[in-house]
Amino acid sequence: MSTVPREEIDRRCVAVQAELSQLASAGAEAPDALLVVQTADLYYLSGTAQQCHLLLPREGAARLLVRKVIERAKDDSPLSDVHEMKSLRDLRGHIEALCGPPPWRIGMELDVLPVSTFRAYQRALGDGVEIVDASRPILAARSVKSDWEVDQLRAGSQLHEKVFGEVGSHLRDGVSTFDLQTLLDQRACALGHCGIIRMRGLDVSIGIGAVVSGEDGAVPGHSMFPIGGKGPNSWVAGGGSRRPIDRDTPVIVDYLMSTSGYHADCTRMAVLGEFPEEATALLEKLSTLLRLAESQLKAGAIPSAIYANVLEAAKDAGLASGFMGPEGYAVPFIGHSVGLEVNEAPVLAPKFDAPLVAGNTLAVEPKFTHPEFGVVGLENTYLVTDDGFENLSTASEDVIVCTP
Amino acid sequence: MSTVPREEIDRRCVAVQAELSQLASAGAEAPDALLVVQTADLYYLSGTAQQCHLLLPREGAARLLVRKVIERAKDDSPLSDVHEMKSLRDLRGHIEALCGPPPWRIGMELDVLPVSTFRAYQRALGDGVEIVDASRPILAARSVKSDWEVDQLRAGSQLHEKVFGEVGSHLRDGVSTFDLQTLLDQRACALGHCGIIRMRGLDVSIGIGAVVSGEDGAVPGHSMFPIGGKGPNSWVAGGGSRRPIDRDTPVIVDYLMSTSGYHADCTRMAVLGEFPEEATALLEKLSTLLRLAESQLKAGAIPSAIYANVLEAAKDAGLASGFMGPEGYAVPFIGHSVGLEVNEAPVLAPKFDAPLVAGNTLAVEPKFTHPEFGVVGLENTYLVTDDGFENLSTASEDVIVCTP
Repeated sequence: MSTVPREEIDRRCVAVQAELSQLASAGAEAPDALLVVQTADLYYLSGTAQQCHLLLPREGAARLLVRKVIERAKDDSPLSDVHEMKSLRDLRGHIEALCGPPPWRIGMELDVLPVSTFRAYQRALGDGVEIVDASRPILAARSVKSDWEVDQLRAGSQLHEKVFGEVGSHLRDGVSTFDLQTLLDQRACALGHCGIIRMRGLDVSIGIGAVVSGEDGAVPGHSMFPIGGKGPNSWVAGGGSRRPIDRDTPVIVDYLMSTSGYHADCTRMAVLGEFPEEATALLEKLSTLLRLAESQLKAGAIPSAIYANVLEAAKDAGLASGFMGPEGYAVPFIGHSVGLEVNEAPVLAPKFDAPLVAGNTLAVEPKFTHPEFGVVGLENTYLVTDDGFENLSTASEDVIVCTP
Repeated sequence: MSTVPREEIDRRCVAVQAELSQLASAGAEAPDALLVVQTADLYYLSGTAQQCHLLLPREGAARLLVRKVIERAKDDSPLSDVHEMKSLRDLRGHIEALCGPPPWRIGMELDVLPVSTFRAYQRALGDGVEIVDASRPILAARSVKSDWEVDQLRAGSQLHEKVFGEVGSHLRDGVSTFDLQTLLDQRACALGHCGIIRMRGLDVSIGIGAVVSGEDGAVPGHSMFPIGGKGPNSWVAGGGSRRPIDRDTPVIVDYLMSTSGYHADCTRMAVLGEFPEEATALLEKLSTLLRLAESQLKAGAIPSAIYANVLEAAKDAGLASGFMGPEGYAVPFIGHSVGLEVNEAPVLAPKFDAPLVAGNTLAVEPKFTHPEFGVVGLENTYLVTDDGFENLSTASEDVIVCTP
């Protein structure tokens, strides 16, 4: 599952080029070529995670420039125009070979490229070169998944079934939510998880999973996740704490499963002992909200409208305060796209007014922070289709009840 | 161990301000105030990992502006001038309160701040504001550790002893290097590791530890680490593979231990069965190189000279090809500083010509890639003192021999 087929890479390069052409015909300043440097984007367009630059002209074949390790890059990537490039001094020559003489407008991922690095590229590229942001066309292409990519998410979802099936072996008296996270991380890796999670942006830190419960789980976190949590200390400041899990208290288990880079995202509830009646009633409401959200997933649907509808329904169900985070700290979305990164677009959130298209893959996660229970909720990863949706998360939505 | 004392925060703010004054008196364009946004830097200067901005004027007290979660930021941080700030629109007012009316030169961490984010700050700060790079003064202050900070590294080093002591319980027939990594990760967390590792820079991905062995361990990796490795697939492209570890084959175990943010870095060798004679001879040579390197650690010593000396000694010992990485892929350093991030300065590498000072904490890691054995080597974390060094890595350097 880990080698990206040639037709995938061809399709992706063409998809990004189509985005560039669309920009150009809309009168925007479309780049003559993209210079791709970020690992997830590079892997998407080349099939290798080696240190590389990828040059993708607006028309024609991509060129892969490998800093480290060329043998592996050649093994990994179906691209045929592959060169070793150890110094940025050689960049102009490669661009000229693909784009003709300067001036050039070069697109880079300015949403992630640090200012100092950007300036180093400006110096290396020299006169007659304008560097513009090209993160949008790349991310737009990435947002529409092929059957092959959806199969990668299916592989992740199968791992969810297996790992949730092992919660009962680890959720015991004396085990903390922090412990349970690390135990399930280990089991996930043993069962096929590749071990790394990629999230786009400055300075992010995210684990394979988050497990919180009870009062410590109700503590707001520092991140933009609907599950906060006390964490083990002020440095980590989120997720599981070192306090042993109480019996008869809801435990939320939220995991990202990636066998080959594609992150399936799924959340289930567990309990050691008996799931409290009040929490069962709460979970039923959240389940109804999940059904409502998924019923609206369909090519052509508007993400911001789905968000507004679900938020309204949450209010009607009496869940206004606590929905998507503790009061004052609710996150402003109910779902996000997943792929090679966990925070892809479109997002089910205000301002996302462009219609969904078939091939979007979204994790929808209605969650509620309760001062005693911690966080209660569910999450599935969905494929948007022309007719509606396919739920890729095959794990049972029932509470995982563990016997003390 | 997780709450940063007031005197630490005061000392650190003063240390960064001293770097700014030094810049100013050297005639450089010193900022009027720093606007700190990156988590490790923020935690260093405030004691909280919540979403914040920290304003540190060139003289006077710092102001902490909290986006999320103010209650936790106030609990975490000994700073007294703490405000909620949800919108960048309020930034100018806070700067004016500390610096007087504009124009202002504001220092930000341009080594990590993405271009798009930088531009958003430019827009928010408006007219009369120049944003300059201030990563160097912050990192310069961070490079000199206090006794309190060294104690955090000691706590990490104690974890190394415990985790290396458990290798024998997990290194068994059928276990892969990838498995052993995940098992030791879990044990490290259970024993006190906080679970996250921070590395400065664009788009980095790093685990708690790396375990490689044999041929798969000799495969060059995509990273700038002296341990490469095949990894589980082309997406991860480094570290342990899923192939079971062979008996009588060296296994290198390299771990970052952090209880509270400070990363102690230590590497030991292990084996299932008997450590090969040839590998023992190799390890002895690398041990001699480690002794040579540490003997030169002292306030006033020049990092680039230590690097050159050790490289020369490696050549004299017949280790030229394979030292610090497979041929063609050797990394250009033999040690790096550690603290709240694992890739701090100074580095024992060419061009690091400024003398070491007491309080620098460096991980020194002579390693050799052998086509059959994988990687053989050792690593300790050291404190530089006025008289020499203190080895913080108390774990025995003996090979961890595991009985099949």
